[in-house]
Amino acid sequence: MISAELKAKAGKIKLVVTDIDGVWTDAKMYYNAEGEVMKAFSTYDGMATYLLNKVGIPTAMISGEDSPSVAARAKKLKLDDVFLGIKDKLIVFETLLEKYDLTPDQVAYIGDDVNDYIVMQVAGLTASPASTPAFHILKPDILLDRVGGDGAFREFADLIIAAQDK
Amino acid sequence: MISAELKAKAGKIKLVVTDIDGVWTDAKMYYNAEGEVMKAFSTYDGMATYLLNKVGIPTAMISGEDSPSVAARAKKLKLDDVFLGIKDKLIVFETLLEKYDLTPDQVAYIGDDVNDYIVMQVAGLTASPASTPAFHILKPDILLDRVGGDGAFREFADLIIAAQDK
Amino acid sequence: MISAELKAKAGKIKLVVTDIDGVWTDAKMYYNAEGEVMKAFSTYDGMATYLLNKVGIPTAMISGEDSPSVAARAKKLKLDDVFLGIKDKLIVFETLLEKYDLTPDQVAYIGDDVNDYIVMQVAGLTASPASTPAFHILKPDILLDRVGGDGAFREFADLIIAAQDK
Amino acid sequence: MISAELKAKAGKIKLVVTDIDGVWTDAKMYYNAEGEVMKAFSTYDGMATYLLNKVGIPTAMISGEDSPSVAARAKKLKLDDVFLGIKDKLIVFETLLEKYDLTPDQVAYIGDDVNDYIVMQVAGLTASPASTPAFHILKPDILLDRVGGDGAFREFADLIIAAQDK
Repeated sequence: MISAELKAKAGKIKLVVTDIDGVWTDAKMYYNAEGEVMKAFSTYDGMATYLLNKVGIPTAMISGEDSPSVAARAKKLKLDDVFLGIKDKLIVFETLLEKYDLTPDQVAYIGDDVNDYIVMQVAGLTASPASTPAFHILKPDILLDRVGGDGAFREFADLIIAAQDK
Repeated sequence: MISAELKAKAGKIKLVVTDIDGVWTDAKMYYNAEGEVMKAFSTYDGMATYLLNKVGIPTAMISGEDSPSVAARAKKLKLDDVFLGIKDKLIVFETLLEKYDLTPDQVAYIGDDVNDYIVMQVAGLTASPASTPAFHILKPDILLDRVGGDGAFREFADLIIAAQDK
Repeated sequence: MISAELKAKAGKIKLVVTDIDGVWTDAKMYYNAEGEVMKAFSTYDGMATYLLNKVGIPTAMISGEDSPSVAARAKKLKLDDVFLGIKDKLIVFETLLEKYDLTPDQVAYIGDDVNDYIVMQVAGLTASPASTPAFHILKPDILLDRVGGDGAFREFADLIIAAQDK
Repeated sequence: MISAELKAKAGKIKLVVTDIDGVWTDAKMYYNAEGEVMKAFSTYDGMATYLLNKVGIPTAMISGEDSPSVAARAKKLKLDDVFLGIKDKLIVFETLLEKYDLTPDQVAYIGDDVNDYIVMQVAGLTASPASTPAFHILKPDILLDRVGGDGAFREFADLIIAAQDK
């Protein structure tokens, strides 16, 4: 259940941009002697990109890490906008505004940690998973019920889809 | 504890059909650079197929994904009816009715997401794990206490077995 | 906190016998196309075997599964009594009584599912992890606070150690 | 929220020393037939070492295990002080005091189990994750809200950073 004000904001969204670690995952980094071996994603977030796509809203990924696991997951989900190893997320955010010819209030962003702060000052609707360690810094519009890696992105997507008029 | 009405429905069940991701797993997809590397199942659900079998009730798996991990798990559990990469679950459901010469009210189904909706309108008894993101859409007969990948299927099986007369 | 009666029972224990899946693990079976690839144990249970050993109490493992992961974990912990792929746990239990020249009331057992039932009728002190799906069947002396794979065995061991006079 | 007394202690900290298993991980040891195959760390703890570093506080790791996964994680985070396979943590702690020319009250320590006890008697500020099985033995200054492997170290770091004057 969200306020009428948030629902109005959500109704304007035409693109969803998402951080990966801690949002699409439970922040766990599985390591062996060679470094990171895998990531665990949720099938609920994969379904969310499909459901968003059905109402005409693309999903873009921006990650500070350059992880082959994320690239493989994005490929499986047929996502076009996947930006890995990004130090300045705001530049990518602005590139996406230009590509899709959108204003910031038409773009939603979900992130969980301090390196998402700057983008979250600009995006039209913001959310964080329940598991964020930086809630008091990020002050997202919505603190989701679900944790990262267990459908937080899906919960955000469902809420945006429900607010669309069509 | 279930109602007398649900117990009566459960007493008629002669086949249990189950979705996999989010039911037999916690919806996590473990990915490396090459794609999905494994799935985590619960030994409690494996035991459930054994206990169901002892009272003459087979278990059938239907998954939208075509995952080798699911095939390996099904082989270990000696399940005969395993349908992977299925887009239209209703067709498989009807094939199973024919194979076992059953009516829909004799078949139970457990699923967790929107792609289980159509089958769940037909099956005689339906359930979802506590972790489902689609409870308000699926409206299953039973919302289980256990989450996917941690014995939700077992809980459903125990309840069906307890309702059998024999 | 346990009752004086249970503490008296725990004070007599000279051997701890443990099931593996669902006790030393969270019941998860990690599968790829070839079958089971790994198990996740808790370092707290490893520490428990060390602490039990310091007060002269050995740990014996009995598992229905024949898992190489369990064998590797037992080797790391230098456990001598490791029985894998066991269909009749009672026979192994009796072999252990003979080997250590003990009576059943001197042996503790921790298990989580129906295939632990018969041994749990015989052992002197029984426990199940909080995550057991079979509490009402097993009726253990102690339902632990911790779940399988997250220190349930350690909790049981701490309680037995605290009850020893020495 | 911590007391003024603890905040004063935290304000003096110039080095953070950390245990690994059960602190940086959820205590899970992933095993296959060959032994341990990986560990799961949290990206929140990685971020914590970066945030501590920004205020001039290095992070040192001391682990009783000699795990290649820990070495790989430390390398990724560019940590200099990584001590693996350590039986006597106090000796390493004293070596660190000498290297950084610090007194014990300037060093924080986070640990979760009985083998952290001796160091925790000496360190200037101590903490344990919510998941510790040894709270009543360790009696840390701070029992964190977060569990091991899910940002317990980050929570401790945030609290130390907030107490710094600069």
